[in-house]
Amino acid sequence: MDIDFLSHEYFMKEALKEARKAFDEDEIPVGAVVVCNNHIIARAHNQTEKLNDVTAHAEMLAFTSAEEHIGSKYLKECTLYVTLEPCIMCAGAAYWTQLGELVYGVADEKRGYNLVSKKLLHPTTHVTAGIMHEECSMLLKEFFRQKRMQNQ
Amino acid sequence: MDIDFLSHEYFMKEALKEARKAFDEDEIPVGAVVVCNNHIIARAHNQTEKLNDVTAHAEMLAFTSAEEHIGSKYLKECTLYVTLEPCIMCAGAAYWTQLGELVYGVADEKRGYNLVSKKLLHPTTHVTAGIMHEECSMLLKEFFRQKRMQNQ
Repeated sequence: MDIDFLSHEYFMKEALKEARKAFDEDEIPVGAVVVCNNHIIARAHNQTEKLNDVTAHAEMLAFTSAEEHIGSKYLKECTLYVTLEPCIMCAGAAYWTQLGELVYGVADEKRGYNLVSKKLLHPTTHVTAGIMHEECSMLLKEFFRQKRMQNQ
Repeated sequence: MDIDFLSHEYFMKEALKEARKAFDEDEIPVGAVVVCNNHIIARAHNQTEKLNDVTAHAEMLAFTSAEEHIGSKYLKECTLYVTLEPCIMCAGAAYWTQLGELVYGVADEKRGYNLVSKKLLHPTTHVTAGIMHEECSMLLKEFFRQKRMQNQ
């Protein structure tokens, strides 16, 4: 496989596939993948409704799965791709993993960690924002549009 | 049972029992219980080493267990007793639960959420700090003293 193919967009599309699973399950559509050495080692989507559990954000489930995969609490060599900017809880978890890189799609203007401080992440975590933000944003907007219609 | 018995100290002692389980399992000794209507509905201790998972803090496991118990994502009528001040991740999770009350033992001078902002919690969450802080602190100090000796 051509190494150029494994771009940020390539992996964000995989995170979007996860987000669409959440959408189809009537969950707020956020998806994530964890990538290590150009391989996806964990996939997850938001399951807070299904599991009745606020901690079941896509990022948290992806971290747990990735840690299980590599047998370590630390994800220093890994990149998290997530369709929505992490919240404070997920940024706090990313800190503990010493995550190598965070790539997210669309900013969360209500609960994104950057609203508190960019320093919630580990100082060694590299951040790239805005990858495929249109697609990530549209999925969320469509979800909440449908929710509003259902509630009318 | 005399209602006076069910004081903050009573429930913090239960959280300390959990912390001692963590100590005995060679985990950083932090314990938590979730209380609703004077009943303990969840107990947990830190299991980050055993589970190889940074998200396995006592508070996170206690939230998940309490949510399962009451069948809701929200813990508005509940109190979390935890021996150590929550970190940013756990404070972020507490926000999502809309936790009624947080009672903690000893402040975490390195990673406590108050170092960032008291506002990481939900605005309706009542906070009481310093309950049995000596006992909570001593257990942590003894753990790290033993760790230093092992590493010498």
